[in-house]
Amino acid sequence: MDSLKVGIVGAGNVGSGTLQILFENKEQLAHKLGIPVEVAMICSRSIHSRELPAGAESIAKTTDWREVVNNPEIDVVAELIGGTGVAAEVIEAALANGKAVVTANKELMAKRGVELWQMASDAGRPLAMEASVAGGIPIHTVLREGIVGDRIDSMAGILNGTCNFILTEMEKAGRGFDEVLAEAQKLGYAEADPSADVDGFDARSKLAILAALAFGCRVPVEDIFVDGIRRVSDVDFSYAAQLQHTIRLLCVARISPEGLALSVRPTLLPKAAILASVSGSYNAVWVKGVYGADTFYYGRGAGPLPTGVAVVSDIIHAGRELRSGRQNRVSPYSFRQLAEYQPAPPESFKQPYYLRFRVENRFGIIADLAGILRDHGIGIDAVGQLPITNWRDLPFVITVEPATHGQIEEAVATMSRLEYLLEPPLVMPMLTGF
Amino acid sequence: MDSLKVGIVGAGNVGSGTLQILFENKEQLAHKLGIPVEVAMICSRSIHSRELPAGAESIAKTTDWREVVNNPEIDVVAELIGGTGVAAEVIEAALANGKAVVTANKELMAKRGVELWQMASDAGRPLAMEASVAGGIPIHTVLREGIVGDRIDSMAGILNGTCNFILTEMEKAGRGFDEVLAEAQKLGYAEADPSADVDGFDARSKLAILAALAFGCRVPVEDIFVDGIRRVSDVDFSYAAQLQHTIRLLCVARISPEGLALSVRPTLLPKAAILASVSGSYNAVWVKGVYGADTFYYGRGAGPLPTGVAVVSDIIHAGRELRSGRQNRVSPYSFRQLAEYQPAPPESFKQPYYLRFRVENRFGIIADLAGILRDHGIGIDAVGQLPITNWRDLPFVITVEPATHGQIEEAVATMSRLEYLLEPPLVMPMLTGF
Repeated sequence: MDSLKVGIVGAGNVGSGTLQILFENKEQLAHKLGIPVEVAMICSRSIHSRELPAGAESIAKTTDWREVVNNPEIDVVAELIGGTGVAAEVIEAALANGKAVVTANKELMAKRGVELWQMASDAGRPLAMEASVAGGIPIHTVLREGIVGDRIDSMAGILNGTCNFILTEMEKAGRGFDEVLAEAQKLGYAEADPSADVDGFDARSKLAILAALAFGCRVPVEDIFVDGIRRVSDVDFSYAAQLQHTIRLLCVARISPEGLALSVRPTLLPKAAILASVSGSYNAVWVKGVYGADTFYYGRGAGPLPTGVAVVSDIIHAGRELRSGRQNRVSPYSFRQLAEYQPAPPESFKQPYYLRFRVENRFGIIADLAGILRDHGIGIDAVGQLPITNWRDLPFVITVEPATHGQIEEAVATMSRLEYLLEPPLVMPMLTGF
Repeated sequence: MDSLKVGIVGAGNVGSGTLQILFENKEQLAHKLGIPVEVAMICSRSIHSRELPAGAESIAKTTDWREVVNNPEIDVVAELIGGTGVAAEVIEAALANGKAVVTANKELMAKRGVELWQMASDAGRPLAMEASVAGGIPIHTVLREGIVGDRIDSMAGILNGTCNFILTEMEKAGRGFDEVLAEAQKLGYAEADPSADVDGFDARSKLAILAALAFGCRVPVEDIFVDGIRRVSDVDFSYAAQLQHTIRLLCVARISPEGLALSVRPTLLPKAAILASVSGSYNAVWVKGVYGADTFYYGRGAGPLPTGVAVVSDIIHAGRELRSGRQNRVSPYSFRQLAEYQPAPPESFKQPYYLRFRVENRFGIIADLAGILRDHGIGIDAVGQLPITNWRDLPFVITVEPATHGQIEEAVATMSRLEYLLEPPLVMPMLTGF
């Protein structure tokens, strides 16, 4: 093998970033791999109208991905189109044709990653997916190689840059969710249909992938508890600030002898925690190992170049594997076999919670709510109320001592029947131990 | 290969931590490697008086490291004794006998790592050294694999836990260096002879290793500018706080077209910077990539178990390599060939500096110092003075606008001749851009 020949499928943001790095950083990449990395073909449905980075002029282009996966010269195919349709066809065909595959596709890998890895393994070809989670942070490599000797106890991550941008802006400027979302959409930080981001589905796919790597089990995405950030309001940031906390959309995984607890939800973090200093579109992952204790990883969550670094790093990884004549390829999940997902029962973990109510004020509300909490075995930590401006839509907060997910869900279901509540209570866990 | 057989040389702190993880985490390690990891032999000069972790009872023990490297059963030798004498003999003999080698030895790898890797490469065996820098943080793996696609622009690290513990305690408690050092020694956080830590030599070895990995060049340790923390006083923390800064021993590497600038020195960091939140014995590394921009890595700097995780992760890495029948082994430096070190000329980089003076007060001091700075082309940013308690030993501070290392060194040399200075000025750069 005199050079590593790469086929790029998808020339959008990530594709352009990847190409720019492959062209500009060519010399150093050759020093690291030992042979040059050459782009052999670029495929995009709209290849003729795309502006590609300098260096792409002389490279073969096509609108048909089959030309890439059938090109006998190509060693590695980078699937950078996203989605679960054509992308899956590209990867399957590439593996079937004996290509190594690199992908940035979180949705597909969260849904069908284990199966695709099985195909890669049968074909004796590497499959790498560093770019699928937290673009700029090499968290796959860390879990698969860097701290592979540890046993992971728990993990907390900020994995959606759009939500983190929105929450940070709400906090900084004291502005409401809708206003900031509209601005984020105008700036191109949020999609026209923001659901995948703000409802937590994007973060959920990423958590499913990281949980497989950290705990060695195959997690059905739909089984992860998810709650988005639409209901978080400026009022919540005011109350959080009173408590010396801030609010972030947090992906949390915790293992117990009974199983694994996974959730994606807006969460209160102490302002002094390093995780709370992650602002704007940055991502971060906090890992707790049984032996290595705390480690923390931080970087850009997305963007053509940071995600491009992940794709190019995977291309080098694949190139090293291909050059090695390797048997027993390293699993992209670190574990060579994934166990079935065993969800932790709802009574496995206790944590403090923040409950925010909106009520039409009347006599005896606190007594009602305190009684319901007591009946569910939940202790009150504090009751907080900002200066009242509207007696007919009065927000206030109760923070409670550590309780289980089950206790809180049941108490809140009972509370939601109270007719003076203007909406069901907003429930956010308060992170401890990170 | 039905199992990976490991020989442990050195059963001190890191050795015990490594053994504990190999025993306790055995099941998960087998799932990750695909075959069991077995400890075949443990060597320590004082093996008969050592208390070893549960699981070591039935394992062969020796006081002679030659028995380990000559044991034909053993696949991987972990050198965990440290120092540059016997440790080098162990590694050389192990490689000569066809063993893979894992080492936690920063001093040896900083001095002779490239040569030892050449021997490993000739022998076709992996050599891994994750544990040699920042025990709990997988920074080697990150640079070698995770962000290998990027080109590193600069790097700033807190790499000595003892210094960070001392500086954090001085800051928290407003106490002096000597007092905190004595306490750290009593608690076992600092050695009886603290020079390697507090004079920056330990951190310098680590920076030499990371610079090789990040920039692909072979750095002679002695060529790195080093300044320890002995002269940092409680007064400096007071002045730093006035400037919304704190003080940490920082390892910095920056590349320019003319060469690489490397330094280890106490540095002022803005309190709002994430790096400034690294306290106690933690370590951290901030990396700036040309493409991936900022990434940040944080974890424990030392300790039997965090460092043990690094050693065990390297053992799994070596095991995967050995199982693969791999040609063209990955270089532990990522780059397959290291270039010669090209130091950046002293005028390459400008940064603001903090200059702290101790003087016997008299008329015209500020005018003298300001004149000297002006004569060296250095602009003054601010002059600060806390309430005066002793006119015969008066500390005050001048912060200056970005200047080169050369400018500052020359100005300070001129200032040091002033007879009313009780000691040469204390010079600390003020970190910007991280």
